[in-house]
Amino acid sequence: YSTTKPCQGYKPDKFTHLHFYFHDVISGDKPTAVKVAEARRTNSSNVNFGVIMIADDPLTEGPDPSSKEVGRAQGMYALTAMKNISFTMVFNLAFTAGEFNGSTVAMYGRNEIFSKVREMPIIGGTGAFRFARGYAQAKTYKVVGLDAVVEYNVFIWH
Amino acid sequence: YSTTKPCQGYKPDKFTHLHFYFHDVISGDKPTAVKVAEARRTNSSNVNFGVIMIADDPLTEGPDPSSKEVGRAQGMYALTAMKNISFTMVFNLAFTAGEFNGSTVAMYGRNEIFSKVREMPIIGGTGAFRFARGYAQAKTYKVVGLDAVVEYNVFIWH
Repeated sequence: YSTTKPCQGYKPDKFTHLHFYFHDVISGDKPTAVKVAEARRTNSSNVNFGVIMIADDPLTEGPDPSSKEVGRAQGMYALTAMKNISFTMVFNLAFTAGEFNGSTVAMYGRNEIFSKVREMPIIGGTGAFRFARGYAQAKTYKVVGLDAVVEYNVFIWH
Repeated sequence: YSTTKPCQGYKPDKFTHLHFYFHDVISGDKPTAVKVAEARRTNSSNVNFGVIMIADDPLTEGPDPSSKEVGRAQGMYALTAMKNISFTMVFNLAFTAGEFNGSTVAMYGRNEIFSKVREMPIIGGTGAFRFARGYAQAKTYKVVGLDAVVEYNVFIWH
């Protein structure tokens, strides 16, 4: 089921900067992220330790949710810190507009949502982003109740 | 939302070896890992196939849990083998001491906890560990009931 031959590996030759806004809506009747699991003792933890959310969060050009959609962040985030609110993020960013329509970026990291700028690794990608490596910087733009708009700057070598 | 330009990509120029002890406590009143999901038939499986645990496990310099904390392993592990006990590990190692305070290492792999030494890929990192690649070797140091102390040697090119 396998064949192997000598080869020098892939050399990145491009750098791409992506800038967009990530919308995570958990309240109301049209949430984009839903709770799928939690620990028995989660509600006694004031930081909701143990919750797992599945999300299909829209990515837009501007901060306004009605601005042009450029993709979706599909994946899950789990609340994995006992002392503060911090997510383990497991997402693929699937782009649906412009040059990168049909390509995805794999983001996997730790997101301490109350720090100013959070960095998360870009560990891979598909299509135009095959062999992608880099990092994402997330900065909360606006929070209304439990719903958040987060500004993302993603720097990718591919 | 995107700009792209030619670039040669990032060349790793450092090698770091990290050595610490990972404490996973699931019993007692102060667990560091909690069950958040399981399959309907999990309890009829003698290897607990289908359990998902969320963990915020301390990392210390020495094997004694009271020795100096150097970070936290925050993430989840799922029991994903039907024939033996083996975990899918989804963790970010967030370091809180010394030179790497504030940096994280993204670990993602398969952990067959009853084999002597288990290897798991390091697929990325943040801060000082941006662009990290490497591997972690886990070796069980001590088990008391269901609680384990695991010795980690992590080898990182970044």
